[in-house]
Amino acid sequence: MVKAIEWRGDRVRFLDQSRLPLREKYTETRHFTVIADAIRTLRIRGAPLIGIAAGYGAALAALEARRRKAPVDRWLDKAITTLLDTRPTAVNLSWALSRMKQILDLRISGDEKCSRCVEEAISIHREDEVMCRKIGEWGESLIPMKAAILTHCNAGALATGGQGTALGVVYSARETGKTLHVFVCETRPALQGARLTTWELMKSGVDVTLLTDSTGAFLMQQKKIDLVIVGADRIAANGDTANKIGTYMHALAAHAHHIPVYVAAPSSTIDPSVPDGSAIPIEERSGSELTEWGDRRIAPSDVATYTPAFDITPGPLITAIITEQGIVRPPYRFTRNPKR
Amino acid sequence: MVKAIEWRGDRVRFLDQSRLPLREKYTETRHFTVIADAIRTLRIRGAPLIGIAAGYGAALAALEARRRKAPVDRWLDKAITTLLDTRPTAVNLSWALSRMKQILDLRISGDEKCSRCVEEAISIHREDEVMCRKIGEWGESLIPMKAAILTHCNAGALATGGQGTALGVVYSARETGKTLHVFVCETRPALQGARLTTWELMKSGVDVTLLTDSTGAFLMQQKKIDLVIVGADRIAANGDTANKIGTYMHALAAHAHHIPVYVAAPSSTIDPSVPDGSAIPIEERSGSELTEWGDRRIAPSDVATYTPAFDITPGPLITAIITEQGIVRPPYRFTRNPKR
Repeated sequence: MVKAIEWRGDRVRFLDQSRLPLREKYTETRHFTVIADAIRTLRIRGAPLIGIAAGYGAALAALEARRRKAPVDRWLDKAITTLLDTRPTAVNLSWALSRMKQILDLRISGDEKCSRCVEEAISIHREDEVMCRKIGEWGESLIPMKAAILTHCNAGALATGGQGTALGVVYSARETGKTLHVFVCETRPALQGARLTTWELMKSGVDVTLLTDSTGAFLMQQKKIDLVIVGADRIAANGDTANKIGTYMHALAAHAHHIPVYVAAPSSTIDPSVPDGSAIPIEERSGSELTEWGDRRIAPSDVATYTPAFDITPGPLITAIITEQGIVRPPYRFTRNPKR
Repeated sequence: MVKAIEWRGDRVRFLDQSRLPLREKYTETRHFTVIADAIRTLRIRGAPLIGIAAGYGAALAALEARRRKAPVDRWLDKAITTLLDTRPTAVNLSWALSRMKQILDLRISGDEKCSRCVEEAISIHREDEVMCRKIGEWGESLIPMKAAILTHCNAGALATGGQGTALGVVYSARETGKTLHVFVCETRPALQGARLTTWELMKSGVDVTLLTDSTGAFLMQQKKIDLVIVGADRIAANGDTANKIGTYMHALAAHAHHIPVYVAAPSSTIDPSVPDGSAIPIEERSGSELTEWGDRRIAPSDVATYTPAFDITPGPLITAIITEQGIVRPPYRFTRNPKR
């Protein structure tokens, strides 16, 4: 299993995801600014992973202050502000940094704050790792002994501090000796499936076939898909699920072919304050993700575009939602606030 | 309306589609080898257009022989062989060239053969133009006064000798004063939607929005699509339709949202000898269309791929099939052989 990020005593080692799948390049650093820069430039990406990296970034700042005999409080405060600014919309980022900020407010010595920062950052990472493992163990029970699995986008080790959510279920099922083949949708426009999911599955020795996003339904028609499993960005009280654009289309096709659709996500993804999917705001990406490829233009320069990053899959189309707490089936009625 | 190909007295003018959408470059030539090369290198593409270009290519060869005082028969025969070899699987190519070959076998003078060749090539072109126009006129009656239309791939002026099939319906509806907005799916892997359909619709002043292929279903969920219209590569006796990969997915989504799906194609696309979709062979494209972009790799080098060029939409999902002969609705039971 690839490790997207690791704490190594007094430094962080992380995988530069912007080079994937061409190069597997790791960076080791003792400077929080390197972490902030990596988050900003998408070398570290995936909501849970960003939170973990930010926690480590704050810890590095505290250690760096101590090395320089500078005030730990000031360095920590500055690092938290800098890290928060890297990707303002990522909810895991602010959640992780609010945990680090609580240490800043404690009435303890700078040295003690340093140790607490490192401990807290490692805790954030370990909690995520354990959560992925639990999702995998619950979800594994839903996977047949031999299964052809369709997935979309990247909900794997590259997006989390552990083995991932949707792909975590795949890894756990494989550990129990099941025979799996994963069909990976490329996931336009940003190609997380083609670039990241294929890479991490192949690195773990999982059988993989890459598809265009529109090929999934055709494979279902040929009875070549046994189940669909994806992650989630937000889940409403009624089970309506926001996930990467394309998820809804796969769910519709799976429904038409009587194929189960599983959503694997931490319980913190469930937002009972949102009654249904219509209340989930949908981020729109830049049209250039559709019209350009690196420095090459692939559509007329003045063409109008519509590029939502996510779509909404209605709860009734989701066979089960797998969290670290267990498996829930429709009708979904989430009322409790998540622990986070 | 863009003219992808034109006969100009003693020469052919064609649009170099490989430059689109970046450049609108036309080539004029009196040499059949230039036409053969353009078909081979996809500068001329689209099944009907390839047939038309091949006809003109043969006519150019006959004229060239006369200019050089060489035997018309030998030049014509050589041109037909060369042109047939450019894209061996394109059915329109062999159909058009078999018409030209009949002239070769006539007991008339070389001069007369030259004239007949030019006349026959122009006829092939005109017949296609008229057919597109008729499809447009029939199909137009199905389009509301104000409509948001989803289309996939390129079934337009760039693929035919006239205004196209699916897009021909759009053009005809617009001529009658209807207010249309066309949502164009980019059409992975070869991006005919992003590169060609957006370009030709915008050039004709049609309102266009470009989407990833997976965004169509999400727009349908938001009640922003009134109908789907696409072309076809082959239609079985029971109405099962082979068309560009992705068509089936759109048809499933449209069915779930009670949105009509129209297929617009010449009656020659109907193949009553094929009982249903399962008997239609599906061409598979090179995996590099999925893993590479120009000279850039976007997936691991050794990843397995599955890249069917077409999928099969079952007849019952198709609200109506529009040909030059009229509108047919399910249940489809095609028995007559097409005229071609």
